[in-house]
Amino acid sequence: MRMIKYGLVGASGRMGLEIESLMQEAGNKAVLKYDKSGLWQEGTPEVLIDFSSPETLEKTLHLAREMNSPLVIGTTGYTDEQLSMINEVSQKIPAVLSYNYSVGIQMLLKCVEFLSDNLADWDIEITETHHRFKKDKPSGTALMLRNAIGKDVGIHSLRIGNIAGEHSVSFGGLGEVLTLTHSATSRRTFAEGVLKAVNFIVQKEFGLYSFKDVLFQNN
Amino acid sequence: MRMIKYGLVGASGRMGLEIESLMQEAGNKAVLKYDKSGLWQEGTPEVLIDFSSPETLEKTLHLAREMNSPLVIGTTGYTDEQLSMINEVSQKIPAVLSYNYSVGIQMLLKCVEFLSDNLADWDIEITETHHRFKKDKPSGTALMLRNAIGKDVGIHSLRIGNIAGEHSVSFGGLGEVLTLTHSATSRRTFAEGVLKAVNFIVQKEFGLYSFKDVLFQNN
Amino acid sequence: MRMIKYGLVGASGRMGLEIESLMQEAGNKAVLKYDKSGLWQEGTPEVLIDFSSPETLEKTLHLAREMNSPLVIGTTGYTDEQLSMINEVSQKIPAVLSYNYSVGIQMLLKCVEFLSDNLADWDIEITETHHRFKKDKPSGTALMLRNAIGKDVGIHSLRIGNIAGEHSVSFGGLGEVLTLTHSATSRRTFAEGVLKAVNFIVQKEFGLYSFKDVLFQNN
Amino acid sequence: MRMIKYGLVGASGRMGLEIESLMQEAGNKAVLKYDKSGLWQEGTPEVLIDFSSPETLEKTLHLAREMNSPLVIGTTGYTDEQLSMINEVSQKIPAVLSYNYSVGIQMLLKCVEFLSDNLADWDIEITETHHRFKKDKPSGTALMLRNAIGKDVGIHSLRIGNIAGEHSVSFGGLGEVLTLTHSATSRRTFAEGVLKAVNFIVQKEFGLYSFKDVLFQNN
Repeated sequence: MRMIKYGLVGASGRMGLEIESLMQEAGNKAVLKYDKSGLWQEGTPEVLIDFSSPETLEKTLHLAREMNSPLVIGTTGYTDEQLSMINEVSQKIPAVLSYNYSVGIQMLLKCVEFLSDNLADWDIEITETHHRFKKDKPSGTALMLRNAIGKDVGIHSLRIGNIAGEHSVSFGGLGEVLTLTHSATSRRTFAEGVLKAVNFIVQKEFGLYSFKDVLFQNN
Repeated sequence: MRMIKYGLVGASGRMGLEIESLMQEAGNKAVLKYDKSGLWQEGTPEVLIDFSSPETLEKTLHLAREMNSPLVIGTTGYTDEQLSMINEVSQKIPAVLSYNYSVGIQMLLKCVEFLSDNLADWDIEITETHHRFKKDKPSGTALMLRNAIGKDVGIHSLRIGNIAGEHSVSFGGLGEVLTLTHSATSRRTFAEGVLKAVNFIVQKEFGLYSFKDVLFQNN
Repeated sequence: MRMIKYGLVGASGRMGLEIESLMQEAGNKAVLKYDKSGLWQEGTPEVLIDFSSPETLEKTLHLAREMNSPLVIGTTGYTDEQLSMINEVSQKIPAVLSYNYSVGIQMLLKCVEFLSDNLADWDIEITETHHRFKKDKPSGTALMLRNAIGKDVGIHSLRIGNIAGEHSVSFGGLGEVLTLTHSATSRRTFAEGVLKAVNFIVQKEFGLYSFKDVLFQNN
Repeated sequence: MRMIKYGLVGASGRMGLEIESLMQEAGNKAVLKYDKSGLWQEGTPEVLIDFSSPETLEKTLHLAREMNSPLVIGTTGYTDEQLSMINEVSQKIPAVLSYNYSVGIQMLLKCVEFLSDNLADWDIEITETHHRFKKDKPSGTALMLRNAIGKDVGIHSLRIGNIAGEHSVSFGGLGEVLTLTHSATSRRTFAEGVLKAVNFIVQKEFGLYSFKDVLFQNN
């Protein structure tokens, strides 16, 4: 794959550092960085990645429009108004927007959808395990899983130690059980997803895409 | 669902008894039974189920042809010649032939195929756990799973206690792991699959079908 | 081990049949059976096993006293008064009384006690999975586990398919997780526990014992 | 707990950094560091921690003797001769020596020993899962587990993704299964073990101790 020149908003954050590290391993080159300490730039990015916070959105969209740079956004917590702004910009500049760049979770969602459709009379329960410091119950990903199942199944939230994140869906029929479990073992996995999104979005003309589109849409 | 009149070859075997029990629960009616003690008959079956042994095949095919009864066959160990005979008969009489009537295993196979196609650079390993008395290693189902994956992944065979059968496929990427596990908890599950096959085959004119066809083919 | 002559109260119940089957495999001999259809007897039992219902207790205690037969009791639901009666009888006739004759569960309890004592600052959560028809939540065994832990940990109850019973205790520290899981795969396991209790109690003079005593007390 | 002044040999290695970070969180103070860039010292350590490589041993023992500092050693790969040197030094200066400072693994070993002793007729199998880059099969910890079991059980080694380390021991009886699983989720857990060893060894006069002694010996 050819070298891509990229910009990174939120460059000094935890995910920012992880993304930077992987982008460089993959042979790509940072030409713009933006974080609390200000803007550093030495070229025009072919893609602009934003893993920062909602208040930076205006700056990001301004930069993207100015340089005509496709967007990959992983920041969470936008207001509806902000989401509309992203949507509007995407009509001219292609953008990927997702709250979860893990490939495995997207695969899990696909399998869970398939099984829910084909095992209509089986019982289903979701279990999610996270570190003791996580405050929200259930996790956002557990809610995505319940949504994929399409009915009101139980979600069990365990909070122990410093587990990065484990999600399990159990399907029980009479005489057999199918259990699908996803474990995140490091933040690296999300950076890998971002890299896929980057390679996807640089080939687009315009439009707003999800991470699911990145993985499953034929180009 | 309407009542179905069925015949059962291998009626007194372990699977035979399990099938009989479920077929009756489902409101169906045995009109023919065949086992070591001979033939009992009080009507013409709409479907003939065979869970017996290879040497009974000739009798089964004779009965099926004579009464024009669709077939559901779960017997294992046929020779190639016998498989040809079944194939030939199926050109006039519809037949389902499968070595595994578990719905969950078929679902697992589908998910494993999907994941293998979409996670090409992840590592994959199969683990299967069975009772200490099982002689073959790896299990036939583990081989089916490896076949679905399409490359030469490791299979780990554990033999402990009297576990009915557990199959697990682990997909490992950098930073995440997806594990799919199927456990059979009773023979009942296979009987459920046979019932599905029965309801499928009574609507067919002719042809040889797998259990996968039963589950996924749109009629 | 030598042949033991035994009596069985509740002989035609599900556990009764399972116990009968295993006792015979082990080379022992039934000389008394009691159930709804009445009493059958052809000798004096060296031990009297009761897996029936609370209302049969009086008959059982009468038989035990009359024949001086040690007792192994697995019936549940006794009143406090009935428990006192068993206790009183046990001062002359040795008796084992337990609600759970699974060896594995007793082992799990021991390990869980040990870990709780030694991992005081780890987080603990219990998960139990049973068939969809089980009405009580949480299971009695989950409560025993919480009791062994000695603090108010979370219990998550999953109800899917027809799972015989699975109990899992997760201990989470910073950087590591220990999970202990017990699965019952058949009623047979409880019959095995009864057999151990039988071999234990025929060597006693008097006294009331738990199944824990059977497994861990040195004779 | 009071503040401890410590020295760290191998201060700039992966484990060195992890230990440094935790020691400081715990309110302790580095007064000596030694690594490839040389020696830095500003006081006399109450304990000297060595997570470096075998060739540094001579320097470490020299420093320990000179300053009369108790030792906590986690370096692997020593020769027998070097092990003798440590043993000799420990007759005057107390030392902890272990290849695995995870509390959870020590707990797992204890439970596995207990279960092996009490479930003599059950089948046992070990499974260990590590990242694809791990070269040795089976893992050292799996060998420790087999040693604790005391008989020649199967070990299954899975190599997928970048899993830090998972060890599982399954005990199978007729009708039930007990599975114990340990997952390491970060290097932090080993640093926590080192901290325990530090607090243990500063109270000793002399002698060579294992990490098991640290956890289970009453002082």
